Amino acid sequence: MDIKDIVFHKAKEAKEGARALLKASTEQKNRALHLMAERILKESEYLKKENKKDLAFAEEKGLSSAMIDRLTLKDKIIQEMAQGLRDVANLPDPVGEIIRMWQRPNGMTVGRMRVPIGVIGIIYESRPNVTADATALCLKAGNAVLLRGGSEAFHSNMAIVKILKDAVAEAGLHDGAVSFIDVTDRDAIMEMIKLEGIVDLIIPRGGEGLIRTVTENSRIPVLKHYKGVCHVYVDSDADLKMAEEICFNAKVQRPGTCNAMETMLVHSDVAASFLPAMAERFKDAGVTLKGCQKTLSILPDLDTLKDEDFYEEYLSLTLNIKVVDSLDEAIEHINRYGSAHTDSIVTENYHKAMRFLREVDSSAVMINASTRLNDGGQFGLGAEIGISTDKIHARGPMGLEELTCMKFIVLGTGQVRE
Amino acid sequence: MDIKDIVFHKAKEAKEGARALLKASTEQKNRALHLMAERILKESEYLKKENKKDLAFAEEKGLSSAMIDRLTLKDKIIQEMAQGLRDVANLPDPVGEIIRMWQRPNGMTVGRMRVPIGVIGIIYESRPNVTADATALCLKAGNAVLLRGGSEAFHSNMAIVKILKDAVAEAGLHDGAVSFIDVTDRDAIMEMIKLEGIVDLIIPRGGEGLIRTVTENSRIPVLKHYKGVCHVYVDSDADLKMAEEICFNAKVQRPGTCNAMETMLVHSDVAASFLPAMAERFKDAGVTLKGCQKTLSILPDLDTLKDEDFYEEYLSLTLNIKVVDSLDEAIEHINRYGSAHTDSIVTENYHKAMRFLREVDSSAVMINASTRLNDGGQFGLGAEIGISTDKIHARGPMGLEELTCMKFIVLGTGQVRE
Repeated sequence: MDIKDIVFHKAKEAKEGARALLKASTEQKNRALHLMAERILKESEYLKKENKKDLAFAEEKGLSSAMIDRLTLKDKIIQEMAQGLRDVANLPDPVGEIIRMWQRPNGMTVGRMRVPIGVIGIIYESRPNVTADATALCLKAGNAVLLRGGSEAFHSNMAIVKILKDAVAEAGLHDGAVSFIDVTDRDAIMEMIKLEGIVDLIIPRGGEGLIRTVTENSRIPVLKHYKGVCHVYVDSDADLKMAEEICFNAKVQRPGTCNAMETMLVHSDVAASFLPAMAERFKDAGVTLKGCQKTLSILPDLDTLKDEDFYEEYLSLTLNIKVVDSLDEAIEHINRYGSAHTDSIVTENYHKAMRFLREVDSSAVMINASTRLNDGGQFGLGAEIGISTDKIHARGPMGLEELTCMKFIVLGTGQVRE
Repeated sequence: MDIKDIVFHKAKEAKEGARALLKASTEQKNRALHLMAERILKESEYLKKENKKDLAFAEEKGLSSAMIDRLTLKDKIIQEMAQGLRDVANLPDPVGEIIRMWQRPNGMTVGRMRVPIGVIGIIYESRPNVTADATALCLKAGNAVLLRGGSEAFHSNMAIVKILKDAVAEAGLHDGAVSFIDVTDRDAIMEMIKLEGIVDLIIPRGGEGLIRTVTENSRIPVLKHYKGVCHVYVDSDADLKMAEEICFNAKVQRPGTCNAMETMLVHSDVAASFLPAMAERFKDAGVTLKGCQKTLSILPDLDTLKDEDFYEEYLSLTLNIKVVDSLDEAIEHINRYGSAHTDSIVTENYHKAMRFLREVDSSAVMINASTRLNDGGQFGLGAEIGISTDKIHARGPMGLEELTCMKFIVLGTGQVRE
């Protein structure tokens, strides 16, 4: 079979799995997840043996130690995979929830019911544990998953998928619910994203290049995660001690993440009192600071920032500082230069807090909190399959609900259209 | 300017309009809608004069009388446009609604707030009244609209847009909220659907060719309406008199619509008692019936149906009839051959009704009601911008809520990430 046929065949398998899942009970899905966890632990030696094949090839190819680290199935990672499967089993089942029902003048009752999406295609790169994590969330929400992992983790992924499929079958479900495209050629991705009518949603998890290729070529809806250019705005009415803690945390706690702050906006009324101590603390933590002209008049030692720096996702200990003269200027800046990911205001002023909340157009808008808190776990959504920077279907952290859709249901008593 | 520049320029205008709309109050938006209605009525002679230019060109080009009919701005259509704008003004504003707020262990409150999507691109064909209808819904939900109408309605659309823009400005809003791509070349569509980052959503309204072109080439999420292959299943426990009324209504009331029935499934236990009278009634109404082998054993005069007929959206007085032996066979048939649009069961059996509701994977699933009732107006959603056959973001009739998205909001008191 050529690549196109293999991908089509695997997708059809997933489609059959998705159809069968429409009948699955919560108990059956949970049983499958618990069996997956059991088998993953029981087969850990087999997993590590298969993983060694990938590691040997990675060393041969001279992959970086960071890459090899991400690829390695240590005992701890295997235990986390099993625990992740059990955690998802313990989350409430989103399927079947009925959101609102109302009655129409002709007596029919109309409502919206949460149902699975169908077949979800996950395209990912090196970490083999994504195979289990993504499967758990898709299955719990009643979807079949069509996986396409990175070539460098091929043997590890195949081994994990074998275990997951066996568990699904043991639980009495159709094993098409977990389908894996066993073609390492990148053309497999191009074929996969053209299968509209079979695959219902694509979630690419990886670098910007992968996401761009998928978005530009897919005929299937894509939920994607582009960059996070996040801001904290220190208002003239801020509690400056609180502002310092929030800004420090937003930049320094884990600078390589998408929800770390890249630009700090400071109101001109408080810039002279706030910036010197804040800058000192940043410098002590190794942060490189770039300032606008007004910032430089207070902190003359900083690098001068250029307009294009405001678009930058540094993912490192570098920070832009800009002094603004009003809330309007701050909001305008964020909506223009930000990536609509996570933005926070520090203020004690109610009116300004409410305006920021409404007028900033980002997936998470915060008052008096660190941008680092935008996360499925921190928000209490349970496990997350990613953070969407899209506006359509899902925005921000995506949990189980975002892997479902709503259909209309009608309970009639013989109504017809007049 | 070349086409690419014009489209880009108009889209940027819409983007500015969308940013400004983030600050608009419900009152301002409603005032704009009422002003639009007033001006449309006041300028009806101007509209008809511009419309005549399109009509003259249409006759020159030899367009069909049906096309010319759709293109004509009669007084009645102008009045309906104005009434439509007022109706949307009277609907509740979806923006700002907060769906659930919950508290986290660290004391921060997390919630989800309904907000505008941003810039919505509408690509449509001949009917000029879509210009006003689509604008009303997008604006009320806080979005800027980027319109691209059919070339045959160019002068009519330009005139309507001028009136709408003037009203928006008079209401104190940014007139980029209504932007119209004044290029009749089809390349304008290809440029428009590549403007990811500026345009947030594309809704194509037109024939299958247009929708396919847009879906295959768009880098922007698309909400589309493909075909409706709808079913009614007459169960062995059906009230057969009710079944007859529902099936007759579903096929005959308006056969050219997407929610009309194309295949009637009948349980074998009731086929012999149900089919003869039903067939008689259909024949009297001019319906051409095609039957499966089992149907032919009861009604030998019918045409024999072929497997591919089950995929057909007739949009006319033709109907497939298939006898099935179980609920499972009916559900299996619908999920395999249907277009996941609208499907109904007629039964008095509770257990079978509930299984049908859950296991049929369609945008609207009904018990004891005609498929013709799947409609925003019938469901009580107010005006609708279309019926989505997608599963992502919106499924079924799309009202104002479907033109919004949900962002996360966080009310903190100084929380940082540990």
